[in-house]
Amino acid sequence: MTKSSNQRSDSESQALERVRSSFALQGLMAHLGAELADVAPGRVVIRLLFRDELTQQNGFFHAGATSAIADSAGGYAGLTLFPAGSSVLTVEYKINLLAPAQGDHLEAIGSVVRSGRTLTACQLEVFAVAGGERTLVALGQQTLICLQAKPDSR
Amino acid sequence: MTKSSNQRSDSESQALERVRSSFALQGLMAHLGAELADVAPGRVVIRLLFRDELTQQNGFFHAGATSAIADSAGGYAGLTLFPAGSSVLTVEYKINLLAPAQGDHLEAIGSVVRSGRTLTACQLEVFAVAGGERTLVALGQQTLICLQAKPDSR
Amino acid sequence: MTKSSNQRSDSESQALERVRSSFALQGLMAHLGAELADVAPGRVVIRLLFRDELTQQNGFFHAGATSAIADSAGGYAGLTLFPAGSSVLTVEYKINLLAPAQGDHLEAIGSVVRSGRTLTACQLEVFAVAGGERTLVALGQQTLICLQAKPDSR
Amino acid sequence: MTKSSNQRSDSESQALERVRSSFALQGLMAHLGAELADVAPGRVVIRLLFRDELTQQNGFFHAGATSAIADSAGGYAGLTLFPAGSSVLTVEYKINLLAPAQGDHLEAIGSVVRSGRTLTACQLEVFAVAGGERTLVALGQQTLICLQAKPDSR
Repeated sequence: MTKSSNQRSDSESQALERVRSSFALQGLMAHLGAELADVAPGRVVIRLLFRDELTQQNGFFHAGATSAIADSAGGYAGLTLFPAGSSVLTVEYKINLLAPAQGDHLEAIGSVVRSGRTLTACQLEVFAVAGGERTLVALGQQTLICLQAKPDSR
Repeated sequence: MTKSSNQRSDSESQALERVRSSFALQGLMAHLGAELADVAPGRVVIRLLFRDELTQQNGFFHAGATSAIADSAGGYAGLTLFPAGSSVLTVEYKINLLAPAQGDHLEAIGSVVRSGRTLTACQLEVFAVAGGERTLVALGQQTLICLQAKPDSR
Repeated sequence: MTKSSNQRSDSESQALERVRSSFALQGLMAHLGAELADVAPGRVVIRLLFRDELTQQNGFFHAGATSAIADSAGGYAGLTLFPAGSSVLTVEYKINLLAPAQGDHLEAIGSVVRSGRTLTACQLEVFAVAGGERTLVALGQQTLICLQAKPDSR
Repeated sequence: MTKSSNQRSDSESQALERVRSSFALQGLMAHLGAELADVAPGRVVIRLLFRDELTQQNGFFHAGATSAIADSAGGYAGLTLFPAGSSVLTVEYKINLLAPAQGDHLEAIGSVVRSGRTLTACQLEVFAVAGGERTLVALGQQTLICLQAKPDSR
């Protein structure tokens, strides 16, 4: 890339703003109580505080809650690298639930592994944080598609 | 099987009751507004009415909502075939999002493909229903583990 | 579609011929001893006779052999529905190994679940056939990408 | 663990020997030309030299070859951590094919992410090496089951 550092910084900050706007449009994230904790090029972190409304039958976080924030974290990690005016859809993902998702909050990290013109692959990690301890509770892989010249619309 | 029809019917109705009790313990299902629509041996259907609280950025059902009911439908389909006193955990699942999840409600169908002593494999289908039309919007595969002599507890 | 039956039949037979030509270019299929058993629009069957060269440590078919024919069956099922002059790549797949792959031969069936302009989703089934008995030994899902105006080339 | 370093070293070298013996029993690995390049606790590397017998229709390594060595690398990474007398089966895996698998050889790395009494999760990476350059061409996740007191047998 021969872009100057200022130009890169401009398009970067636009990309991060695009993620924040899109996240704010997701009714489900608000309903679950999920928050964007960090947005950087190719990497997004979403945090979800424990509530009884998020549980499965044993009182742990439900795999559906774990997956929802993992999917959004990966999708937005991809979106940070997409060209202006584009949007993102999840094609598919796979997630292994490695340990009971038990703790004060979950932290989902989506990281771009490979970003192509049409398809992007992400890794998804979800940690449960209890006191100061972090445990990897889920690990996933996701395929995204970039819809060019097709911004979010409701 | 040489069990009499009455015996089978007894253990079957216990299994179906076990699914209903466990579903009622899932805080997330109530929070999303999901309902058990049908429970039969090896097959469970969950229905989810559209609400703005379930959307992604374009106003469709969020993949996290689609996945949550698909995961629960598969898990409970497995549980119907488990021995008394056991519980179910999802080991992993994979889901392809085939079409925008748009409609009045979603219907997730979990079906047992193979039930072993320790592991069970399920197929997951999610249909979007708009007016009278049903569209397959997601297709998945799931691996469950049977925790013997370990009933649900909160 | 308002194409006449003859036209459809022409483009169909061209698609089936495209699959046969492409299969013949796959060095791995010949090396394993795999054969195209059936090619129809949206559905391809590949057969693989048992040989000691295909085994894992217990003498069953190796998951790598099972997966190789499943992947090719799905890819070619997709290709039957692609426009002339295009080729197919596997984006990803997931496979559950449900039972020991033991028998005289394996039969992998790839079936298109949804065919889009860019992406196609397939279901993959592999049966082991021993005597007259067929057992489902693997079940998978696959995502394909259509490379338009980019025929196979070596 | 309070085992002395010598004891640990004994059980470790037995585990590594178990992997080498089991690998030697896999007819498919020999038929493809795959070699065990490195075996360490929780991590196994398999190398596969390019041959025309391993290709797909464009002359790259076939996804089936890529997957076969990825699956074996993960399975044996798991086996290094299993108790004596046990064996390993793949429950399922998922693999994203990120780039054309083109080069002098492939290197598959299986790494244990979480090792439980019954189930083990691994990450699978496959690199294509061309000249001195390494490219990540596939990324996967795998679930293994430990069969206790059930050594390999043919």
